[in-house]
Amino acid sequence: MASVIRLYVNHPLGAGQSVPLSREQSHYLFGVMRKGVGEVLELFNGHDGEWLGRVVQAGKRNGILLCERQSKPMQLPPDLWLIFAPIKKARTDFIVEKATEMGAAQILPVQSDFTNSERIRQDRLQNHAVEAAEQCGGTYVPVVHELQKLSKLLDGWDVQRQIMFCDETRLGSGEALPSLAGPWAVLIGPEGGFSPAERRRLNEMPEAHGVSLGPRILRADTAAVAALTLWQSALGDWQ
Amino acid sequence: MASVIRLYVNHPLGAGQSVPLSREQSHYLFGVMRKGVGEVLELFNGHDGEWLGRVVQAGKRNGILLCERQSKPMQLPPDLWLIFAPIKKARTDFIVEKATEMGAAQILPVQSDFTNSERIRQDRLQNHAVEAAEQCGGTYVPVVHELQKLSKLLDGWDVQRQIMFCDETRLGSGEALPSLAGPWAVLIGPEGGFSPAERRRLNEMPEAHGVSLGPRILRADTAAVAALTLWQSALGDWQ
Repeated sequence: MASVIRLYVNHPLGAGQSVPLSREQSHYLFGVMRKGVGEVLELFNGHDGEWLGRVVQAGKRNGILLCERQSKPMQLPPDLWLIFAPIKKARTDFIVEKATEMGAAQILPVQSDFTNSERIRQDRLQNHAVEAAEQCGGTYVPVVHELQKLSKLLDGWDVQRQIMFCDETRLGSGEALPSLAGPWAVLIGPEGGFSPAERRRLNEMPEAHGVSLGPRILRADTAAVAALTLWQSALGDWQ
Repeated sequence: MASVIRLYVNHPLGAGQSVPLSREQSHYLFGVMRKGVGEVLELFNGHDGEWLGRVVQAGKRNGILLCERQSKPMQLPPDLWLIFAPIKKARTDFIVEKATEMGAAQILPVQSDFTNSERIRQDRLQNHAVEAAEQCGGTYVPVVHELQKLSKLLDGWDVQRQIMFCDETRLGSGEALPSLAGPWAVLIGPEGGFSPAERRRLNEMPEAHGVSLGPRILRADTAAVAALTLWQSALGDWQ
């Protein structure tokens, strides 16, 4: 299974456009992967779709590609946010990777009352989203936000955006997902569940809909994939 | 969030039943976790439901519990198999963990034409399933099988068992899942996809149904959770 290398580049893409590679990308392509002049790669930048680019300069610090033709149109994901409480580092990385594959447009880590995590490395998580987008064949990279308090996020909530919230401590008593078009957010509770105050607040928001993820308690990373699957297959781009 | 320790024990459970702990469990409970006589734990063995057991002997090598009362009835998962091609070790571990949380009854690792993996550690994977069952609150532990060839598994296939197969190289062209009760299997292709011969064979089996998992290519572990979510919410115990 020979496979073409896919690269995210922070540069405009278009026919005849010359695209300089970063030092890291040049090192990876020409040092590690031993690619050379003439090699064709798939490029995307998050807004111009996917383009085939040919290597015209293979310097291990300063490679240059030439855009030839568009190989995939730009495909934006649905206007879907994933809101989650960060957990252990490896599982937080997984959630960002999986949210990218599953087609979330924005990823918002939050501190809830029962979240242990005090900080995240936003730049590292954003890089994970770039790598997952390179891998999954998408043309879009979701934005990873800085950590914020859930209560503050809900204070400024736009009532036009529906919330599907998954409370792992509330088993088998969910609503059906209402088939409302427009912007949505999927909210995954922390492993300890939402606090009573948070649960009360969500239950009082008419735009928030509690959904059950079955009779077993899912880990937060499993819950993120499961909830995004339910949403994408009912309302998103899997239909 | 104080939480009760949950343990899988390979021993009958029932009112008044005395349950000896293994050396590893005794060490963990009384050495690492510093629990003592009188402590109450949740116990399950995969067929008697969940029971509360009280520590009556706290030896670091030979603890004993006494079963008091049933705290959860036995809940068998649907008759659902997860068949997948093992990938890198960490992701294979994740697939077993996630399949347990998602309620698969049996987990069958297979070698397909494009699988790289030559071997698995069945005992390690079975232990992962036990740990995931302890964590997710289920009363059942799925059986993890030894690695076998996909072609051989299909040679002996029981036509009564429907197959939902997810081919990551075939984007956006799935069937709807037919709502047939009875035994099912979810089959996840390897990262390189099925070979043309495998795809032909599956397409010729009337009991095999190809399903799409959206417009992006999912990693095998993401695909496993997504496919099990679709099945559980349509035909399984999430309904």
